[in-house]
Formats: sequence, C-alpha cells, structure tokens
Amino acid sequence: MDLYFSPLACSMATRIALYEANADASFLEVDPKNKRVLQDNSDFRAINPLGLVPTLRTDDGVVLTENAAILQYVAERFPDAQIAAKPGMERSRLQQWLCFIGTELHKGLFVTLLDPTAPSEAKAYVLQKNLSRLDYVNGHLEGRRFLLDHFSVADAYLFTVLNWTQAIPALDLSKWPAIAAYVQRIKLRPSVQKAAAEEFTLYKAELARHKAA
Amino acid sequence: MDLYFSPLACSMATRIALYEANADASFLEVDPKNKRVLQDNSDFRAINPLGLVPTLRTDDGVVLTENAAILQYVAERFPDAQIAAKPGMERSRLQQWLCFIGTELHKGLFVTLLDPTAPSEAKAYVLQKNLSRLDYVNGHLEGRRFLLDHFSVADAYLFTVLNWTQAIPALDLSKWPAIAAYVQRIKLRPSVQKAAAEEFTLYKAELARHKAA
Repeated sequence: MDLYFSPLACSMATRIALYEANADASFLEVDPKNKRVLQDNSDFRAINPLGLVPTLRTDDGVVLTENAAILQYVAERFPDAQIAAKPGMERSRLQQWLCFIGTELHKGLFVTLLDPTAPSEAKAYVLQKNLSRLDYVNGHLEGRRFLLDHFSVADAYLFTVLNWTQAIPALDLSKWPAIAAYVQRIKLRPSVQKAAAEEFTLYKAELARHKAA
Repeated sequence: MDLYFSPLACSMATRIALYEANADASFLEVDPKNKRVLQDNSDFRAINPLGLVPTLRTDDGVVLTENAAILQYVAERFPDAQIAAKPGMERSRLQQWLCFIGTELHKGLFVTLLDPTAPSEAKAYVLQKNLSRLDYVNGHLEGRRFLLDHFSVADAYLFTVLNWTQAIPALDLSKWPAIAAYVQRIKLRPSVQKAAAEEFTLYKAELARHKAA
C-alpha cells in the first residue's frame, strides 16, 4: 500500500491510521507547491489529477482519493486495529463525524485560514460563518475520550485538523477547554506521537526547500 | 422516518433517495433564516444545534446529521432501491464521490458563491481555487451515465449541487458539456422530477414569506 502525503497535511490522519494498524505501507511525499513526488521527481497529477493528498494506492494497484474514503478503507482493511466502526448506527456516526470534520472544519474553516494567499475578507468571512463549529465539537467532547466510544479514524482526522490551530492565532484552543484536553490526550498515543514527530521534521525540510528555491 | 429539509438545499438529495426507495417518510421544512420548523414553529436547533439540513430522524428515533452519513444510511436501509454501493471498492468509490462533492464542490465552491452575504473577495477566492473541480467532474462523466456504474445516492447529491448553478452566472454549465448532459439526463428520473418540482414550489413560497416579513 502506498500513501501519497504532504507533511502535516490532512494525509497525516491516514498515516496515524496505518501506524495504529501496524500496516506495511510506503509513504510517498508530494511537494504541495510543484506537485512533484520527492522520491522520483514524478508528476503527482498523473496519479491524482486534482493534486490532492491523501491519495492511496492499494495492494491491488487501485488508486483511491478523498480523506473520508481512504480512512474508512484503511479502517476496514485492518479490522484488528479496531479503528473502524461496527456496522449499523456506529458506522453512520463515524460517517457523520468524517463528513463534519471534512466539510465544516477542514474546508469550511481551516483551509482558508491556513492559506497565505487567501484575502483577509475571505478569512473574516469563514471565521464569522463557521467558528461556532468548534463550540459544537467542544460540547460533544465534554466528558468523552473520543468522538465515538473508542479511538477511530475520525479521531485521527480530527486531531490532524486541530493540530493546525498552532498556526492560526484566531483559533486559540484555550477558548475550547474540552477540545484542548482532547488534543493533549490524543497526542500521547504512540501512533500519533510517531506520525506528528516524523511529519514535523519533514515539514521543516519542506519549508527549507521552498526557501532555498 | 423524518427528514428535516429546506427547499432546494442539499437536503433535496435525501428526498430524491427516499423517492427512489418509495420510502415512507415525513418531510419537515426548516426556514433557513430563523431555523423554525414550519409545521409547528418549533426551534430546529433543539434537534440539530448546528441548524443544518439535512437532518434525519430514523424510525428508531435516532437523529443523524451530515449529508454523506444520511445518504449512506438511506441507501443501506432500502437495499431494493439499489442506490447503495456493493461492499468493497464500489463502496469506497461511493464514499470518495460523496466526500468530493461535499468538500470540493458544495463547501469549496457553491456555499460561498450562493451566499448573498459573502464578500466579493471571498467569491473570487473560491472561484480561483476550486473552479477546476468542475473540469475534473466533466472528465469523469465523459462517456458515463452516472458517477458509479448505476444511479446511486452520489448522483442524487451531485445533481442537487449542480442544480444550484442556475443561480450562479459564473458557473454556466455550457462550459462543461458532459456535466450539462448529465444534469439533463438525471433531471428526467421520476424521483428527481418530483423532488425538484415540489421543492421549487416550496422555495418560491419561502422567498415570498421572507419578502413579506
């Protein structure tokens, strides 16, 4: 299995899931600026025309895109890791959270706030529209360890997105204590520690590469 | 089963799915401005604190939110309608399309373009960032009738989103011929005709209500 990723991008959720599963996987780094695969300088757009990570190539050679689909694929492929949901309403809840994180948080709030090319009016607009989404997450996490009743790929995705708040002063997590405590808790999982440390190192290298270019 | 909806909002995808399934369902209209349920003037935020449609109450009384989760729930609940995907890679592809439509099209492009309160800078920003997503969809639909190999809830969602282009001059579908042909084709399905006609009538009533207020 090959995971195309960029350091600290939303693809880190899949890396966390693969580490939870002790899965045998190759990690292929995509430069977010020129969309080249670092290992062989090939054009990532030949794999995924949208140029978006994560992109997964399964052991059968099938290319799968989109975070929610990839995370559910990995969760089901490695049932022993217990990061999937049981069929029925628990699976619906997992899909609900994956959809919420992807649409309301990732796309609705974070993408614009993280983008240095986004105009200030666009940033103000998404803050005004969607900041309340964090109140909703905070309310859900009060008295809970995870989004479902156990760690799942939805937590891998939520942690990855919340990790970006470090770069966004407007999203100081001390305003949302249950979220802040959740991030500290999830960060201690060995899979998350390993993934975050490795990707932070690669991210610093990416910044240095862009600066030198 | 109760579906909370607003006319012509993304909840129309679930209505189409329920019509495809000949499902026994109640449709509860939510005013998008004051978040009141029209039938009894109750506060919709007591059902879904985010105030977002679609929201589904199952026959067991469970409240489910988020389009991708609700559409997959309805598809699995009514297998005879054959609007679900087979387990395995077809299901992953369904999840891939639901995620793509929700994040890249619905949230990434349409929400901002449809919002009369969005600043022009925000509209220009999403057009520049995400207009190419329609090229990608157009390429996929060339030579295909549906997103998968048969009509599915992903088509119900894609049609619902593309239907909004009527209100967005920048998204003139004649620029994307395979998408334009797809919309015309899907529109002919009895479930879609019925849903779109009913919701258009309710939408006109909503506009008149807001104008009178």
